[in-house]
Amino acid sequence: MKAVTIRDGEVLTEDRQAPTPGAGQVLVKSLACGICGSDLHILHHPEEMAKMGEAMGFTQPTEPGSATPEVRLGHEYCAEVVAYGPETRGDLPAGTRVAAVPFLIAPEAGPMGMIGVGLSDQVYGAMSEYFVLQEDFLLPVPDGLPDAGAAVAEPLAVALHFVARAEFDPEQVALVLGCGPIGLVTIEALKMRGATRIVASDPVAGRRERAVALGAGLALDPGAEDVVAAAAAQAAETGRPLTIFECAGVPPLIGEMVKTAPAQTRIVVGGVHSDPMTILPGLAMLKEIDLRFAFAYTPEEYAEALQALADGRADWRRLVTGKVGVDHVAAAFETLSGPSEHIKVMVEPWRTGPLEPFAAS
Amino acid sequence: MKAVTIRDGEVLTEDRQAPTPGAGQVLVKSLACGICGSDLHILHHPEEMAKMGEAMGFTQPTEPGSATPEVRLGHEYCAEVVAYGPETRGDLPAGTRVAAVPFLIAPEAGPMGMIGVGLSDQVYGAMSEYFVLQEDFLLPVPDGLPDAGAAVAEPLAVALHFVARAEFDPEQVALVLGCGPIGLVTIEALKMRGATRIVASDPVAGRRERAVALGAGLALDPGAEDVVAAAAAQAAETGRPLTIFECAGVPPLIGEMVKTAPAQTRIVVGGVHSDPMTILPGLAMLKEIDLRFAFAYTPEEYAEALQALADGRADWRRLVTGKVGVDHVAAAFETLSGPSEHIKVMVEPWRTGPLEPFAAS
Repeated sequence: MKAVTIRDGEVLTEDRQAPTPGAGQVLVKSLACGICGSDLHILHHPEEMAKMGEAMGFTQPTEPGSATPEVRLGHEYCAEVVAYGPETRGDLPAGTRVAAVPFLIAPEAGPMGMIGVGLSDQVYGAMSEYFVLQEDFLLPVPDGLPDAGAAVAEPLAVALHFVARAEFDPEQVALVLGCGPIGLVTIEALKMRGATRIVASDPVAGRRERAVALGAGLALDPGAEDVVAAAAAQAAETGRPLTIFECAGVPPLIGEMVKTAPAQTRIVVGGVHSDPMTILPGLAMLKEIDLRFAFAYTPEEYAEALQALADGRADWRRLVTGKVGVDHVAAAFETLSGPSEHIKVMVEPWRTGPLEPFAAS
Repeated sequence: MKAVTIRDGEVLTEDRQAPTPGAGQVLVKSLACGICGSDLHILHHPEEMAKMGEAMGFTQPTEPGSATPEVRLGHEYCAEVVAYGPETRGDLPAGTRVAAVPFLIAPEAGPMGMIGVGLSDQVYGAMSEYFVLQEDFLLPVPDGLPDAGAAVAEPLAVALHFVARAEFDPEQVALVLGCGPIGLVTIEALKMRGATRIVASDPVAGRRERAVALGAGLALDPGAEDVVAAAAAQAAETGRPLTIFECAGVPPLIGEMVKTAPAQTRIVVGGVHSDPMTILPGLAMLKEIDLRFAFAYTPEEYAEALQALADGRADWRRLVTGKVGVDHVAAAFETLSGPSEHIKVMVEPWRTGPLEPFAAS
């Protein structure tokens, strides 16, 4: 099978042996797999990511100068049941379209158990033609929700969890910093939770337009306007503290927010940052800032995201902008690493071909 | 009158004109005023404190190399009514012992309005023989609660607010880092809120003993033991996340906690820090750390603290270790700035004399 990996700072599409499902596992075929900001981060900051894994005790320290471990990518996907491993029930027939939280309960999946993020070199991600899931986590994909839409369940689950971590009250003003994929799904999650006052910020005009289309009341260019002041002014009208969703993945922004945000602001951090960040704790104290870090989601949040995309309570069509075959993933990564109007690009590991616009049917 | 100020890096006791109460204000005589860690911080880090004030927009930037503004100290006090200003009700007769949140609603008090922290040079603090309070905030001190006990209401209010900011669930484990005055009152506040599993940490043996006497189940020397691991082990038994109360005022400790604390830990920061702190946001994200900064208290928390000290629900006698006359405050600051077994020292601005042990009657 073809599998996309990152090795020695390069995105590679290679021929590999398809995996064999173990006890409690199911072999699936990947139908679509979104390229995540964290995939780009792994490509551009392999050493920092390795250090983070070491600091968490997930991986062993590597020798200085040695290659960072291979990462087998893909964790935002829609798949199809192929075959069951031992000790499974096999309730869903082969060919059933499925999604599942991308975690395995198995020693070979490593201490974190997540697929597609490179903390184990024994587990394939969903940018491979075939990979393995945990049977107990399988959810059938509702009929009528296309593969690309089902693949958005993962980032939408991230966003639902993000909003839950904020303990967001829909009467509050939300400032969404960064309108890449995570910023835009955060706007969707906020709308699902009843938010009516969303201020979005992004330097790219096309992203600001999408933010407004998805429900932001105001989308500002941070290069031209003081977005925190604008959001703070709206928050002052509500009499409630401001909540800032940091979706830009830029550590200095967090320190900047501590300086410029009004008192009682809650800053929720969801972007992937491997660099250190510096803040002034004295200022944060005088303002009683909350800094909450969010990671992943619960299985319930994932299931809700999948259902919301099927019901139309969340809109995946405004997010998915491109698709690419398994042999052109490296070029797609290059495009997405520069300034781009693309939001979410789907890898279709079962076919070949260059990056092209996604025509939502 | 005599008044204690910090000017040009020195603690000075000087003769000043007693202030005149303005509209809505009352002139009071200071009976006892605790020396706070923030007073020591102002002495040793005047430029950083001035920068913090500037960053908050509280004070104007000073010319490089120029003297930092004079700070008129004292915000943890017990006082006695002397005379009322215009537009007051005057309900409490002269001689009534009173406490009040140390804030003034008056332009001359500056944008923060707090007395004794140096954000205005027009307002005296409670390390002066006389100072001015807001009539609307006055609370009579319950009979039977000595002056020094009433002066502990302020730090206990800080601690009650600290625990409230943590949204602490009494079934959780609390790790109190640092058993100086704020660490010890935090233990008292935790006990008031029903905590039964408190782990304390301090390098000074005498402080650890006080922590245990006040209700910590375990008090460890961070130089000899891994305090986070010990607290994390207790937290694991409860099945609930750990809460860490940072009462040491040491910014690098916060970054260290992000590295060593277990997932889902809530770190509440109450110590005064004027230095920047650096944390690894990626690690904080994978662990879903909460970093909550706490400042001051509500009038309700202050009133509750005063009543709890009067009722004996909180113990001030284990906190107050010394007293000093107005003319020996500089020497007391010097003692408290080094390694010391002292916890809370009361300045008695109405008398003279060196630092001596406080004999609680």
